[in-house]
Amino acid sequence: MSGFLEARPRVGYYYTGKTDTEELNNQLHKLTVKHYQSIAVVVSESDSVYDAICTMFLEDVGTLFVVDKQSHLAGVLSRKDLLRASLGRQDTEAIPVSIIMTRMPNITVCKKEDLVVYAATKLIERQIDALPVVKDAGGEKYEVVGRVTKTNITKVLVDLANNQLF
Amino acid sequence: MSGFLEARPRVGYYYTGKTDTEELNNQLHKLTVKHYQSIAVVVSESDSVYDAICTMFLEDVGTLFVVDKQSHLAGVLSRKDLLRASLGRQDTEAIPVSIIMTRMPNITVCKKEDLVVYAATKLIERQIDALPVVKDAGGEKYEVVGRVTKTNITKVLVDLANNQLF
Repeated sequence: MSGFLEARPRVGYYYTGKTDTEELNNQLHKLTVKHYQSIAVVVSESDSVYDAICTMFLEDVGTLFVVDKQSHLAGVLSRKDLLRASLGRQDTEAIPVSIIMTRMPNITVCKKEDLVVYAATKLIERQIDALPVVKDAGGEKYEVVGRVTKTNITKVLVDLANNQLF
Repeated sequence: MSGFLEARPRVGYYYTGKTDTEELNNQLHKLTVKHYQSIAVVVSESDSVYDAICTMFLEDVGTLFVVDKQSHLAGVLSRKDLLRASLGRQDTEAIPVSIIMTRMPNITVCKKEDLVVYAATKLIERQIDALPVVKDAGGEKYEVVGRVTKTNITKVLVDLANNQLF
C-alpha cells in the first residue's frame, strides 16, 4: 500500500487485497484492438511479387494482406517473405504473391473487440509483425477490416506512460 | 480511491494524492533498456548487400547494425533498406552495405540505463523498428552493445499484463 496511503495517528485502514499492479492490469484489460488498429493494406492473389513490393513501399507498411476474388482473407505477406522472394535475381514480376504468401488456415487473426493484450501476446507467441483484424464473412471466411502491428502495441506503451490511453 | 480501500466504521483514511495511473507510471518509469534489450547483430561496412540479407535471415532479425574497422557504429540497415536495394534485379553481391545504410549522425541510439519508455517513444517518433544500445567509445564514437526493437516493447506490454515485469 505504501505510495497510496499514509496513516494519521489513531486512524487505521484496511486493504481490499488489490495491488497497484492489479489496478494496472484492470486498465490494460479494458483496451481493445479497435482503439489502436491501423488501416489494412491489401493486394490481390494474382498480383505479382513486384507489385506487392511496390505497394509495401507506397503505403509504407511492413505487412500486406492478400485477398481472393470475393475480398476474403487468403494470405499474409511480410517484408521477410518479399525479401526472400526477391533474392537470387528471380523475375519478381512473373511470380504471383499466392506462391510465397502465408496461407489460411496458418494465419493468426484477431477481432476488433479483442483485447490489445491478446493481440500483443499472439504477436510474440507466433513471432509475427502484424495480425489482420477480421470480421466473420460466413463459411470460415474472413473479411479484413484492419491490422494490428508491433508499432500499434509500442504506441499503447507510450500512451500508457504519458497517461494518454484511449 | 474506490477499488483500493474500504472504510471501517469510525475509522478514516486519507489519500496521498496519487492515482493508480500514476502508480503505473512509476512502475513503467523504473524499467530500463538493459532488462529488455536483445543481442545486436552486426555486419562490416565492406560487406555486400547480399551478405547482409543472408545474415538477416540466418540471425532472424529485422535490423542489422554496421560497424567500421574499429568496431564503432557506422550505420543501420533495415529490412526495408535491403528490400529496396534488391529491387530491380541489381547485383546485390557487388553493392557494399555502406552505399545503402542509414549513417551516423542520422542514427537514433540509446544507452542501457535509458528507460524502456524513452526507447519506445524514440521508435514511434522516428518511425524506426530498432534502436542500437550503445556505449560511448570516446570522440563521438559508439560501441554497439545491444538492440531494442518493437518486439522487445511488445514483450514489456505482455509482461505488464501478466504481472511478470522484470
